[in-house]
Amino acid sequence: MIITIQCPDCVGLVAQISQVLAARNVNIITMREFVDTANNNFFARLEVTNSSEISYISDTLKSVLPNDAIVNVNPQSQKNIIVLVSKEYHCLSDILVRNHFKTLGANVQCVIGNHQILQDICQRFNIPYHFIDHQNTDKQNFEQQIINTINNYSFDFVVLAKFMRILSPGFVANFTHKIVNIHHSFLPAFIGASPYKQAHNRGVKLIGATAHFVTNDLDEGPIIAQQTTPVNHTYQTNDMVRSGKEIETAVLIKALQSLFADKVFVYDNKTIVFD
Amino acid sequence: MIITIQCPDCVGLVAQISQVLAARNVNIITMREFVDTANNNFFARLEVTNSSEISYISDTLKSVLPNDAIVNVNPQSQKNIIVLVSKEYHCLSDILVRNHFKTLGANVQCVIGNHQILQDICQRFNIPYHFIDHQNTDKQNFEQQIINTINNYSFDFVVLAKFMRILSPGFVANFTHKIVNIHHSFLPAFIGASPYKQAHNRGVKLIGATAHFVTNDLDEGPIIAQQTTPVNHTYQTNDMVRSGKEIETAVLIKALQSLFADKVFVYDNKTIVFD
Amino acid sequence: MIITIQCPDCVGLVAQISQVLAARNVNIITMREFVDTANNNFFARLEVTNSSEISYISDTLKSVLPNDAIVNVNPQSQKNIIVLVSKEYHCLSDILVRNHFKTLGANVQCVIGNHQILQDICQRFNIPYHFIDHQNTDKQNFEQQIINTINNYSFDFVVLAKFMRILSPGFVANFTHKIVNIHHSFLPAFIGASPYKQAHNRGVKLIGATAHFVTNDLDEGPIIAQQTTPVNHTYQTNDMVRSGKEIETAVLIKALQSLFADKVFVYDNKTIVFD
Amino acid sequence: MIITIQCPDCVGLVAQISQVLAARNVNIITMREFVDTANNNFFARLEVTNSSEISYISDTLKSVLPNDAIVNVNPQSQKNIIVLVSKEYHCLSDILVRNHFKTLGANVQCVIGNHQILQDICQRFNIPYHFIDHQNTDKQNFEQQIINTINNYSFDFVVLAKFMRILSPGFVANFTHKIVNIHHSFLPAFIGASPYKQAHNRGVKLIGATAHFVTNDLDEGPIIAQQTTPVNHTYQTNDMVRSGKEIETAVLIKALQSLFADKVFVYDNKTIVFD
Repeated sequence: MIITIQCPDCVGLVAQISQVLAARNVNIITMREFVDTANNNFFARLEVTNSSEISYISDTLKSVLPNDAIVNVNPQSQKNIIVLVSKEYHCLSDILVRNHFKTLGANVQCVIGNHQILQDICQRFNIPYHFIDHQNTDKQNFEQQIINTINNYSFDFVVLAKFMRILSPGFVANFTHKIVNIHHSFLPAFIGASPYKQAHNRGVKLIGATAHFVTNDLDEGPIIAQQTTPVNHTYQTNDMVRSGKEIETAVLIKALQSLFADKVFVYDNKTIVFD
Repeated sequence: MIITIQCPDCVGLVAQISQVLAARNVNIITMREFVDTANNNFFARLEVTNSSEISYISDTLKSVLPNDAIVNVNPQSQKNIIVLVSKEYHCLSDILVRNHFKTLGANVQCVIGNHQILQDICQRFNIPYHFIDHQNTDKQNFEQQIINTINNYSFDFVVLAKFMRILSPGFVANFTHKIVNIHHSFLPAFIGASPYKQAHNRGVKLIGATAHFVTNDLDEGPIIAQQTTPVNHTYQTNDMVRSGKEIETAVLIKALQSLFADKVFVYDNKTIVFD
Repeated sequence: MIITIQCPDCVGLVAQISQVLAARNVNIITMREFVDTANNNFFARLEVTNSSEISYISDTLKSVLPNDAIVNVNPQSQKNIIVLVSKEYHCLSDILVRNHFKTLGANVQCVIGNHQILQDICQRFNIPYHFIDHQNTDKQNFEQQIINTINNYSFDFVVLAKFMRILSPGFVANFTHKIVNIHHSFLPAFIGASPYKQAHNRGVKLIGATAHFVTNDLDEGPIIAQQTTPVNHTYQTNDMVRSGKEIETAVLIKALQSLFADKVFVYDNKTIVFD
Repeated sequence: MIITIQCPDCVGLVAQISQVLAARNVNIITMREFVDTANNNFFARLEVTNSSEISYISDTLKSVLPNDAIVNVNPQSQKNIIVLVSKEYHCLSDILVRNHFKTLGANVQCVIGNHQILQDICQRFNIPYHFIDHQNTDKQNFEQQIINTINNYSFDFVVLAKFMRILSPGFVANFTHKIVNIHHSFLPAFIGASPYKQAHNRGVKLIGATAHFVTNDLDEGPIIAQQTTPVNHTYQTNDMVRSGKEIETAVLIKALQSLFADKVFVYDNKTIVFD
């Protein structure tokens, strides 16, 4: 059973939390706790022995913690997600395969794409695919169609698996800390379009990928995971693209699996990841 | 202020610990807790706000925890170490430089070597060097001389910084979990002598280094840290040796700094490292 | 156009090779050359501008090089492979997805498995799956059935994508340097069965995976690629298994892509990999 | 014996080079060759068997290669360097220790610092230290004093080992591709001052270091080597600084050792590194 808590810090929080648990004979297997002393915030994630008294424990924890504490006792362990894609298959396929074999930690409800190219792979895995064209329409209408489609499903997160289009502030505002993007560079280097071309022009010796929550500021949202991989003078831009896809896939899945396991907290445009 | 606790696990330990702290108005900044469920052991390391009541807190913690709990409240933060070397300079120099600039997290009390080659570098940093010849004597006498020398100093750990000689069970028994060795392979691959020659013969594509506590079984003690680095077909054995020295230096210092910061627990021939 | 050459070394080989090319106006874009001085062997891989005179160049190179030179001018760039599996999906799925999207660098001709569990994923990608039961039969008959199946296809390599069964010397002898295996440890550590259990018992801080050619000696064949990933005290054996699957997948594909691009040479139970 | 060649590309260059060598019975042990097809440039580095005819070979190579070919036969293998520092000891100490034990691949001629703090460590290794104060003087005079000091020595490279001051275009123009800097970020992320503070504010999950040649554009010169290391939410800025020093040291020495071994070529604000 997992418990996550986020609240203003004060002396005695761990004592209060652990007393509630001990009183119900619940044992703490692993506890990760962090206090952001600069902002006076308390974050904790506990793996504890199972209990049938989930709502009692949750209520009691809330009653002993500060008023605005965010407490989750046994948050839904199997999350539901919607995946947005464009033309590139690598991140999507990795998600579909893991989903198919029940190792993703989440259920893919559907895939939405602005091209038809990835419809086939979704069909092979019996995942609904919704083609929403961004051409011959304006951005507002395009996004409204996405929202209409999304709202037919129950979901916890929207995953931009190389969606390659910038979502408007209005769209993003509906889903605070619910949209995860994979950016194909080591942010904040190479913000924006064609990061591998930028990287090649600069002559870097490493390229990177960054999984982050989407906010209104392009490529500026809270970072969940990052990774780099070596390149050298023999890499043309397209070699960097190919090599980069390997780490894009790896970083996105790493971020998602932390997220699905309730290991990620957000504050002050940063993340706490207890992994 | 650091608190470390190791004891048999039962329900309510965190509650008891945190109540003791909260009662004295001590706040928990970071807490790492781990229960080895297979062996029913509880391990915790807490960084807490300072208190003037160290011995009261320590006594109270001991009184509420199981009888055989090992509790350290604010363990001596600056450790003392003795370094044993042979002919290779790389690990020793790294330790001496950090010691000199007060960033080692420990004080080097003296260096003992079975060759005279490293006496000069010790003198340059004003560190006592004791030459103890292993030739023209038997092992028992050689080790007795080391013990006699060591006993002139107060120390927490003995660091084998490429000492390259096997210590007898009798020697090791005096210093349980007090001797740290750097082995020049990714253990358990290439146990024993000439690991890089073995690695070259096998045609591996990575070489490694392992920092571990020394026990009676050669290269079988609890592992604290490990690292690998790529090699390829152009590496002759001596190239592997040269490249390996870089990770030997890096792994040893990483293990030592975890150890000096009271982040390492030992049980069942394994380590818990809260880093 | 790719040219690979392997032969005994002597002075002037590069001169002879490059003169042949220059005489036909073929330009060398990238050349990797290595002399194993211990065994007096010469290895070279050249990427050159295209030529319509492939067989002339090949013949001329052979005529100027030592008698037993192995020369390949423009080796078949798209290799054919057969994949052998058991129950685990991760390596196979990665191969199938890349094969489907034409980025594997090879064509999967068929998949052979000793369980039926992975038949479904193969069917989803329209790849023939042959179930060959290892139960209720002896090893010789089991392997003969595999050979009979294999021989229905044209193939360059057999890939053991977590096949988990030891092939007999008789089987292996048919396919020297044609069978690639992924072993779930950092060889030569943890040879044989249950390497993650062995790793957990030893308390290692890194786990690894090794892609190698299969020879008669179990887990002793020439290593093509290796990788490690960190683990810590919180990892139970099954956590290591799960984490290990990520690097097994990554290492196998890395080895295969080097192999398919004619970058791998074998000699003296080692590999030269020009990547 | 090492040979390096850089010239415009055309068909037959390798043939011409290798014929010159074969004619003098010089064998090529390892050859790395790269053609930058976008800019039509040819780069090669050869390790060959020794010859007493260095100047004959050099002259002959120049006579058969394009007019503006840059040919070095057996470039001075032991380079001379001057190190510029400010207050931080980590990169300098690493250089001094390796220099002392003759494993740097270069001779440290002297150290110049704008503070007196590192004078002591230089004296311990008998390396001349020149204190040049940047205070109470203007930049032009400060740099002129450095140039005056430098000119008392013979040197191949100037190494900025955390010099922390921006050199004027006039200074840099004197030493094209002769000045190497270590920047404490993964360029081009966090150009300029306080990169770790910038990194902390952005909430990155990796920090980096970059060794590069110094040009007139701040932090924009050709990159020689880069490396990253993981950080997490528990890292305050000063933790990033401390962790970053480890990779700054590692990246700088890696870049220097490639440079000292004549493995680095520069063109078009990028490097080719044959390592």
